[in-house]
Amino acid sequence: MAEDKRSFRPVSGNVMPRFAGIATFMRLPHVEDWTDVEIGLIGVPWDGGTTNRAGARHGPRQIRDQSTLMRNVHHVSRIQPFEAANCADLGDVPVNPIDLFETLKRVEEFYGKVKAAGILPITAGGDHLISLPIMRAIAKDAPVGMVHFDAHNDTWDRYFGDHHYTHGTPFRRAIEDGVLDPKRTIQIGIRGSLYGEQDYEWGIEQGIRMVTIEELYDLGIDAVIAEARAIAGDGPTYISFDVDGLDPVYAPGTGTPEIGGFTTHEAQKMIRGLQGLNIVGADVVEVSPPFDPSGMTALVGATMMYEILCVMADNLAKRR
Amino acid sequence: MAEDKRSFRPVSGNVMPRFAGIATFMRLPHVEDWTDVEIGLIGVPWDGGTTNRAGARHGPRQIRDQSTLMRNVHHVSRIQPFEAANCADLGDVPVNPIDLFETLKRVEEFYGKVKAAGILPITAGGDHLISLPIMRAIAKDAPVGMVHFDAHNDTWDRYFGDHHYTHGTPFRRAIEDGVLDPKRTIQIGIRGSLYGEQDYEWGIEQGIRMVTIEELYDLGIDAVIAEARAIAGDGPTYISFDVDGLDPVYAPGTGTPEIGGFTTHEAQKMIRGLQGLNIVGADVVEVSPPFDPSGMTALVGATMMYEILCVMADNLAKRR
Amino acid sequence: MAEDKRSFRPVSGNVMPRFAGIATFMRLPHVEDWTDVEIGLIGVPWDGGTTNRAGARHGPRQIRDQSTLMRNVHHVSRIQPFEAANCADLGDVPVNPIDLFETLKRVEEFYGKVKAAGILPITAGGDHLISLPIMRAIAKDAPVGMVHFDAHNDTWDRYFGDHHYTHGTPFRRAIEDGVLDPKRTIQIGIRGSLYGEQDYEWGIEQGIRMVTIEELYDLGIDAVIAEARAIAGDGPTYISFDVDGLDPVYAPGTGTPEIGGFTTHEAQKMIRGLQGLNIVGADVVEVSPPFDPSGMTALVGATMMYEILCVMADNLAKRR
Amino acid sequence: MAEDKRSFRPVSGNVMPRFAGIATFMRLPHVEDWTDVEIGLIGVPWDGGTTNRAGARHGPRQIRDQSTLMRNVHHVSRIQPFEAANCADLGDVPVNPIDLFETLKRVEEFYGKVKAAGILPITAGGDHLISLPIMRAIAKDAPVGMVHFDAHNDTWDRYFGDHHYTHGTPFRRAIEDGVLDPKRTIQIGIRGSLYGEQDYEWGIEQGIRMVTIEELYDLGIDAVIAEARAIAGDGPTYISFDVDGLDPVYAPGTGTPEIGGFTTHEAQKMIRGLQGLNIVGADVVEVSPPFDPSGMTALVGATMMYEILCVMADNLAKRR
Amino acid sequence: MAEDKRSFRPVSGNVMPRFAGIATFMRLPHVEDWTDVEIGLIGVPWDGGTTNRAGARHGPRQIRDQSTLMRNVHHVSRIQPFEAANCADLGDVPVNPIDLFETLKRVEEFYGKVKAAGILPITAGGDHLISLPIMRAIAKDAPVGMVHFDAHNDTWDRYFGDHHYTHGTPFRRAIEDGVLDPKRTIQIGIRGSLYGEQDYEWGIEQGIRMVTIEELYDLGIDAVIAEARAIAGDGPTYISFDVDGLDPVYAPGTGTPEIGGFTTHEAQKMIRGLQGLNIVGADVVEVSPPFDPSGMTALVGATMMYEILCVMADNLAKRR
Amino acid sequence: MAEDKRSFRPVSGNVMPRFAGIATFMRLPHVEDWTDVEIGLIGVPWDGGTTNRAGARHGPRQIRDQSTLMRNVHHVSRIQPFEAANCADLGDVPVNPIDLFETLKRVEEFYGKVKAAGILPITAGGDHLISLPIMRAIAKDAPVGMVHFDAHNDTWDRYFGDHHYTHGTPFRRAIEDGVLDPKRTIQIGIRGSLYGEQDYEWGIEQGIRMVTIEELYDLGIDAVIAEARAIAGDGPTYISFDVDGLDPVYAPGTGTPEIGGFTTHEAQKMIRGLQGLNIVGADVVEVSPPFDPSGMTALVGATMMYEILCVMADNLAKRR
Repeated sequence: MAEDKRSFRPVSGNVMPRFAGIATFMRLPHVEDWTDVEIGLIGVPWDGGTTNRAGARHGPRQIRDQSTLMRNVHHVSRIQPFEAANCADLGDVPVNPIDLFETLKRVEEFYGKVKAAGILPITAGGDHLISLPIMRAIAKDAPVGMVHFDAHNDTWDRYFGDHHYTHGTPFRRAIEDGVLDPKRTIQIGIRGSLYGEQDYEWGIEQGIRMVTIEELYDLGIDAVIAEARAIAGDGPTYISFDVDGLDPVYAPGTGTPEIGGFTTHEAQKMIRGLQGLNIVGADVVEVSPPFDPSGMTALVGATMMYEILCVMADNLAKRR
Repeated sequence: MAEDKRSFRPVSGNVMPRFAGIATFMRLPHVEDWTDVEIGLIGVPWDGGTTNRAGARHGPRQIRDQSTLMRNVHHVSRIQPFEAANCADLGDVPVNPIDLFETLKRVEEFYGKVKAAGILPITAGGDHLISLPIMRAIAKDAPVGMVHFDAHNDTWDRYFGDHHYTHGTPFRRAIEDGVLDPKRTIQIGIRGSLYGEQDYEWGIEQGIRMVTIEELYDLGIDAVIAEARAIAGDGPTYISFDVDGLDPVYAPGTGTPEIGGFTTHEAQKMIRGLQGLNIVGADVVEVSPPFDPSGMTALVGATMMYEILCVMADNLAKRR
Repeated sequence: MAEDKRSFRPVSGNVMPRFAGIATFMRLPHVEDWTDVEIGLIGVPWDGGTTNRAGARHGPRQIRDQSTLMRNVHHVSRIQPFEAANCADLGDVPVNPIDLFETLKRVEEFYGKVKAAGILPITAGGDHLISLPIMRAIAKDAPVGMVHFDAHNDTWDRYFGDHHYTHGTPFRRAIEDGVLDPKRTIQIGIRGSLYGEQDYEWGIEQGIRMVTIEELYDLGIDAVIAEARAIAGDGPTYISFDVDGLDPVYAPGTGTPEIGGFTTHEAQKMIRGLQGLNIVGADVVEVSPPFDPSGMTALVGATMMYEILCVMADNLAKRR
Repeated sequence: MAEDKRSFRPVSGNVMPRFAGIATFMRLPHVEDWTDVEIGLIGVPWDGGTTNRAGARHGPRQIRDQSTLMRNVHHVSRIQPFEAANCADLGDVPVNPIDLFETLKRVEEFYGKVKAAGILPITAGGDHLISLPIMRAIAKDAPVGMVHFDAHNDTWDRYFGDHHYTHGTPFRRAIEDGVLDPKRTIQIGIRGSLYGEQDYEWGIEQGIRMVTIEELYDLGIDAVIAEARAIAGDGPTYISFDVDGLDPVYAPGTGTPEIGGFTTHEAQKMIRGLQGLNIVGADVVEVSPPFDPSGMTALVGATMMYEILCVMADNLAKRR
Repeated sequence: MAEDKRSFRPVSGNVMPRFAGIATFMRLPHVEDWTDVEIGLIGVPWDGGTTNRAGARHGPRQIRDQSTLMRNVHHVSRIQPFEAANCADLGDVPVNPIDLFETLKRVEEFYGKVKAAGILPITAGGDHLISLPIMRAIAKDAPVGMVHFDAHNDTWDRYFGDHHYTHGTPFRRAIEDGVLDPKRTIQIGIRGSLYGEQDYEWGIEQGIRMVTIEELYDLGIDAVIAEARAIAGDGPTYISFDVDGLDPVYAPGTGTPEIGGFTTHEAQKMIRGLQGLNIVGADVVEVSPPFDPSGMTALVGATMMYEILCVMADNLAKRR
Repeated sequence: MAEDKRSFRPVSGNVMPRFAGIATFMRLPHVEDWTDVEIGLIGVPWDGGTTNRAGARHGPRQIRDQSTLMRNVHHVSRIQPFEAANCADLGDVPVNPIDLFETLKRVEEFYGKVKAAGILPITAGGDHLISLPIMRAIAKDAPVGMVHFDAHNDTWDRYFGDHHYTHGTPFRRAIEDGVLDPKRTIQIGIRGSLYGEQDYEWGIEQGIRMVTIEELYDLGIDAVIAEARAIAGDGPTYISFDVDGLDPVYAPGTGTPEIGGFTTHEAQKMIRGLQGLNIVGADVVEVSPPFDPSGMTALVGATMMYEILCVMADNLAKRR
């Protein structure tokens, strides 16, 4: 496979400056033939589940742009993700900006093909509702566990009366559908005023371990990550990283900012702490470029994708 | 009614600075009791029909903010709209950000009540699809004519296969529904590359008079407005002002900018030229604050609402 | 009073989206009849005491806008402020942008009425000079203590020769006037280069406890808050929160930024630590929207108001 | 004087790049010894008369920054202002940000010295109230005529009851003081909704020629400038250029934007049309950098100062 | 060739939303095999010749992003460029950000291959110096004429003593090299203060027709375009469009803005007026995204490329 | 020297408001006669070594602007730098924006004169390559040690094949030239993905102590500073502060942001910890204003210069 891998290497910054060239995820080839791809970077440019400030539909393009700053070797773990696994940009899912149900279906179908091709997906959202159809596709045989970074637990039930699908409901739906195992799920960074006292209850009753930002700081990063590892165990696990889990100074470009979150440095440390888990997919969601013209939120999103990629690629290499 | 009118006067800038106080449209009272209101300023904060860059959901709030700069007397016509008619802020329609069809229904119902109360509405959008349910409500008895300022004719048929309702289709639907009379309709400022050669054809076949930006400059503002007056005639007429009809330098905060449009000065002149027509409603749509943090697009939108208000209030006063 | 309270509830985000509707503080009713109001949210849109970058006059409007994100239940304390007390938006004080002394008088008069109505005020500034006339009104019978978050101690004496009233002098004037008790006052987060060595001396001589940012980190948040509680004691206490106490990354929209401040998370923890004190009023000042088009500084200001509101409402409920 | 002039030449862009070096007006020397200076460029960084959005206090610094793009020869008239006259940066007037009356006095005193030194001033504001103390100084012996570019006529009488000094009143005060001759005054570009019908009346009654933007376009630039020249005649004349006379797309960074104004190209043509008049002073006011982070409004302001400078320097050279 | 053409069609906005997918020029395929390509869209992301504000190196990426708004049919000429010619994105030239001479060589080599492949290039810059190596490649056999839109004539000789290559010198060098025929060259929109009186002379002496912005408005667009057509004649002609020829309100994102330029509408009209000329290449340069976070300058650049593309593709189709 | 010092005092904020006056570093006099100057503040407005996002050429001007907020006394150490040493603004080095080698020479020559005048320089960059010619000048007799704050170690060897001079290579060149002693060098805050595994090796082999951000947090600020003091020892030491060592939320205006850095508070603490070292020069580099229109990055840069100035001035005073 050595030769195949060459065809999946990023364009070097010594051949084409990093700000130049057509922007693909991490300067990887954009492939239409998925053969030999092991980890696929995918965009889901959709925000139709957003109840407050839309804009995450523009996330994948700006994340691609900023991701061209990513280089070959992780400076702490020394993982070389593009050597460890065949990585490629699979393009965007052809979503429909004005139809929620059609888009849920289109995303699920796309990821059904990704799964069928044996590819592990890392997704750039899009709003958080997109995690639902991804899980429906990749966990249709067996539920996944989840390490979930977020300010919100996203297990609300309904909106505006009887609407079941928004970016605040994906994980209740996923649990109901049997594609997410609440007992193997941990949510980290939860905070912000609540609609009602019951906002946290349902998830906890299902068995989710919910760690508020206050508890995160009281217990410490290391203890929480140890707990996350124990909860996820050996089973297939999904990482869902909502950038609003970060303090909004790190991610102003998002739809529902909540002040008082964790730092990027802490997030990086937490993701690195997941090395060795059986990560079968991941997403970085709620990057909303119109609310951050500087592009820094997208750089944060791209770097989080890179951190996750290193963990996943290393895992693949070690299991090979 | 003199005393009633006092209760509808804007807050004076000599009592409360213009940047101060709770922002309502033009500093008018926000009323829940609609008795005696003659012209209602209404927000429809919704952008679910947007196929490109969303954000018009935030339009009404920022337009209210900027509209606090509007003063009592029109400097050219000397119309005093708040003396000429009882004007009030009727608040926003309670739209559903994630459900297109429910929102179409909610908007139509709201404007049904507005019509029933004998109020002429001036609406701040929202994307252009909102014109459809407004027309369905206020023209349900008899179709309206329309003077339509826009870069796009918004008479496309379908999107993404078989979707009939986007911000590119409202006027085809309105004509099909019999609430818009194409023969009493003129579209001004049309431009921009086309999906296909047939983009312009359907509307023209229905009898719409379509004036591209090139034709507008070749004929001259005065001639086009004369033609608009002749087309609209004496019948009930609607003004729909999409801010993307303006050159994007005047309205960068919009979803589908097309360079090479008309100026605000030209727009003001055109609206003033409609004085005396039987205007039964109007909207200013596609102000998308996330794409213009300066607020200037919203100031343009607010001033266009003021220009329209003067024409409508003067008409009301003269027919009294 | 249960029924009265209903009339003071915020508009629900399930009835009207949070970005929609006329923006009042926390979506509460804007009332002109103050009967039954227990806690009043008030804007003082004035920055005439600003010696560097003006703009805080625009603070109240943008804070109102961002405060529509606040929900019903505090996620840590589980306080439900809108159930615990009757809260309402009392509008803005009608300040005069070009006259400092007239404005000091107008603000004092307004808060005199607030006090007479038995309402506890939480104010959105405006620059820091506004704390002076507020204190003159609410502490005219007995001086208040103060927990003061800021980068600057604001006890300078004069400016440009012989000018006594700027946003750098309010607390020297308040102590001289006998409305602020320096022995019951603590200032937290003080930092930044000084005009002269004596900048800190006067306040300390009066008995103020001044905690620099360095001392805050050396002692720890918990110890400083314990000290604040001891200093404030049982007497009537005022909270004054200048957003420039925060590091400027959390509050770039302010007039006199000083790098190296505390975080929003730390600020939230400190305010929560004041639960149980006899808070009789509070302000959040120096939010200057022109220097932060993103609105994030205003979101921080709104959330700090919410944190303070929870403490105050809980106190009211418990003393009832 | 040839040798003196050498010392007043701008730094060349071939010696120090234009973005480099300490920013003075047009890269001229900043002199404390005013001997031999003929035209002085001066900043008045003050906005205490502003009733809406403050920020013009930051105008002079950003105008200096942008003015470093000005080069030696006017491309149309071929005037070489720095050869035609000794031009220098006289620095800023030491205004007091919190005291209106003291500042009026400080500005008048400063310009008294400028006049005493035989220097013709070109001022970068600051809000429009600063024109009053400048006129009081330079026209104390004989009133000046004025060519005034603006959206507002700035001849209001009072504000908030009985306040006589705001950026909306300078020219009524100047006429009352006998330092401005209304019969030798023309105002160009006036527009925007009015407080009341009488807003325009007082000035017209005094003999001011007021040209609305509509009249400007109806008559044409050439005719209006011809009229301006006839009105100003041979007497000492002041040019006051408020950037809000321009359409806000050219000058978004201003305090009271009014849509529908003239273009920079038209403004340049109008200023060039004043060549040969006896211009004894000029100002460019209401550049408010916080409302235009791009700096383009300041570039416009700097270029207008350059256009005026060419006219004034040429006049000096020809009268020598 | 019909089948080949299919492979070069843009992605449809009804299959993938316009904000989605990997951004190539006008959503065309990015091809490495240049066979059958007739018109190549190319980026030269380089600004090492910039003497003032750099940033044009980021132009090609943002122009690609905005160019995804371009549709299939020109609304005035009804040209369908993607049907008329095989168009493709050829990617970026691999420039060296820190080496001017190496980059000149790399660009010339790249365009040498483009020419050898029989492809007509339309280039997105980059600063204006890039026109020189492009001309050296495509005009090495016979000099081209040029229709040049710009505020500056770019025929300066030297900079900082003895430096011959900056973005202010390309066309003097091109004339000296014999790749640009000055007698078949017209420059339109020239303005701005000059370094010296001789700035315009050299070019005029060579035979260049230089039209200042003042002359453009005096003669009228139609007359100038007629003259341009006569000057260019039947020979091979290059279009060079520097966005600073536009007024900076249309193109704030550029390195050397000069106020008082032409509008986008006028530019579109002028480009359309070149239909039928023998255009052998074109560039749109000086789009500098860091100075326009809104992306509107890049949209203008992309639309100008589209206007030029239509003219070139039509010409190709008609000569076939 | 007491009288001389008076002439070098900053303009007081009680005489001229801080936003007013011509912007020099910390409001110090801009002197052409360097006699008696002990510490010189110098700008090097150049970014020709930048491989990614340029813009640091604009750093000195915006840092000057923001530095006018600096006051007389350090609030922790109580050092009064302007009393402790004669400090002045020496202006900018006349760099050539388009010629790397000429600029290296010009900078070295300028600092040769600075050294000859016995002045200790504190430099505002510019990109990081400028540290090389500065060191070549001030350390030509004996190598300096260095305390280096940065995300990158800047000891790469080559770029784009065989290019030796970029902002990623200055310290390898300085070591090779014998002007930097690697054994007396510590680098703090290093992080970010690497080109290759060898990126860190060369420097470590030379004897540099490299502290990644992870190690900084593991060891703690105090321990790392103690180590820095031990490494630097008594010899002449240079401080190089690249603002990208900070987390990008504190310094978004920079060319190569890397998330997950240290805070400004931590940076201040580290610089203060260097008090007593024999600091012979310092720079603050990579402030790139086009990427932070708010100016906050420049305020951070200016404050870091002030922190360093206090340490250097105190040292001078104590050794006197």
